[in-house]
Amino acid sequence: MKNAEDQIVAWLAGHTPLPEELCPIGIGDDMAQVRWNRSDSVCITTDILLEGVHFELASATLEQIGYKAMAVSLSDCAAMATIPRVAVVSLGLPADYGMEEIEELHVGFQRAAIPFDCLLVGGDTTCWRHGSGLLTVNVTMLSEAPPGRQPVRRCGAQEGDVIAVTGGLGASRSGHHLTFTPRVREALTLIQHTEIHAMMDLSDGLSSDLNRLCKASKVGATIQAAQIPLSSAARTTADPLMSALHDGEDFELLFTLAPAALSSLQASWAEAVGITVIGSIQTGSGVSLSDEHGNCEPLPPGGYDHFSD
Amino acid sequence: MKNAEDQIVAWLAGHTPLPEELCPIGIGDDMAQVRWNRSDSVCITTDILLEGVHFELASATLEQIGYKAMAVSLSDCAAMATIPRVAVVSLGLPADYGMEEIEELHVGFQRAAIPFDCLLVGGDTTCWRHGSGLLTVNVTMLSEAPPGRQPVRRCGAQEGDVIAVTGGLGASRSGHHLTFTPRVREALTLIQHTEIHAMMDLSDGLSSDLNRLCKASKVGATIQAAQIPLSSAARTTADPLMSALHDGEDFELLFTLAPAALSSLQASWAEAVGITVIGSIQTGSGVSLSDEHGNCEPLPPGGYDHFSD
Repeated sequence: MKNAEDQIVAWLAGHTPLPEELCPIGIGDDMAQVRWNRSDSVCITTDILLEGVHFELASATLEQIGYKAMAVSLSDCAAMATIPRVAVVSLGLPADYGMEEIEELHVGFQRAAIPFDCLLVGGDTTCWRHGSGLLTVNVTMLSEAPPGRQPVRRCGAQEGDVIAVTGGLGASRSGHHLTFTPRVREALTLIQHTEIHAMMDLSDGLSSDLNRLCKASKVGATIQAAQIPLSSAARTTADPLMSALHDGEDFELLFTLAPAALSSLQASWAEAVGITVIGSIQTGSGVSLSDEHGNCEPLPPGGYDHFSD
Repeated sequence: MKNAEDQIVAWLAGHTPLPEELCPIGIGDDMAQVRWNRSDSVCITTDILLEGVHFELASATLEQIGYKAMAVSLSDCAAMATIPRVAVVSLGLPADYGMEEIEELHVGFQRAAIPFDCLLVGGDTTCWRHGSGLLTVNVTMLSEAPPGRQPVRRCGAQEGDVIAVTGGLGASRSGHHLTFTPRVREALTLIQHTEIHAMMDLSDGLSSDLNRLCKASKVGATIQAAQIPLSSAARTTADPLMSALHDGEDFELLFTLAPAALSSLQASWAEAVGITVIGSIQTGSGVSLSDEHGNCEPLPPGGYDHFSD
């Protein structure tokens, strides 16, 4: 099934009643937000990484897999411009794994978490009984918005907003997906500089994720093919643009802001990672891709779908 | 390897520095506790359930598996006498699963969570690519201590304490492990009535878990064979006492309190689930089992170990 992930999320959101006073942000954003007392809130995300889906043991070390598992959740914190605080890790280990493998994974977890002062506070470790049991790594992470701020959601994009991304896109699965830096610092810098209307991280590919942002915000978007920043890995592929549009696991930020706020943001931006404007938000629905001659065509979700066949 | 789970936990605790002011309870208890601001704290637990280890698809419905996954984490909340608040769920699904299976699991999640006002606020769902990928369910749960209280830990048992358990023990894997009621209410009632010095839930069997409690508290224990409450399922086994001592997944509470507090607790206890005193805490280390003639023998950890072979 195509875009089954969105169907699942929609079904779950419809069948899981959440009182807004207890859970201001529920199912469908990069993290849920729950009230912890009158003044406080906790954001939470969980990500499961499966052998053969998110990594291959033939092409990734356990240390890289541990790093990626933690970095994926850190990227969710970045997606909502929140500060990572705490993580717990669950492991489903192949039957022949022992302490050595656990230690390698742990080195990866900590290499990702420590630079962001995110504490690994617990977990659960179990070995598969079946010889066929494959490596499973789940990370759950708690974060919070900076003092006085709210998490940035997907649903706030407004007509006329410019659409921008960090970094370069495409071909992440050739190696970048194991080594990427989650854009936590960049996200927090963004909201310090200007009002970000909507944001998410690019996990399933620009075409899929921008369609999601538009749907959540009840708007449409047009992006310029010539403006999409290509990663160095994408440039080596047969079709760099297709790679940048549809490949998953870039883990860059996708965000919108008022055009009036753009120039001051660009002028003050001092992070090593670049920001590129790729298009704009309009009324309506869906995403269009415009070529250098101004010819537009629809850009449906075409990215990586964990349920597509 | 025997008791590898304890080895793993010990290694992780030693290699994961946690500042106590940020994380008053770290690796090794049923939940970790983290400070969320000056006055608040969040308790967190994560549990991974694997096909063939924690359940068999031949003998459990998906609804039961969903129920169990959520109930196991609720039992961790009970273990520390905390109030469950929020859960997130991750699913690693066999390649041929679709919405129908997800819906069945979800019914089970909610059947466990709703009676305890625990909100399912999000999750992650991925299908295995490999045909051999087995069902994996991970639940992470957040809880908090009742107002003005602290979570009850494993490390507080004192010389002279009586040791007690809720319910009956043994042979849970014959069916009870899919239907048990997590002892959240009973745990909160316990701490209202009296000061509980140490508590945990019985997940790996009385012999293993009591040894853990003693080790954490730096004490020894003697329990009376004749006083151990047998579940109705254990009574049908060839050796009911062995079943009650060593079988895993009872998900009852194991706790200690001062002997002077016992009679008032017993007099006021109005829960349907019984409390049984099974022994006492002494100086030293390790657990002894005493028969009706007062003959004692060591009771090493003999319960279920997810890493034993």
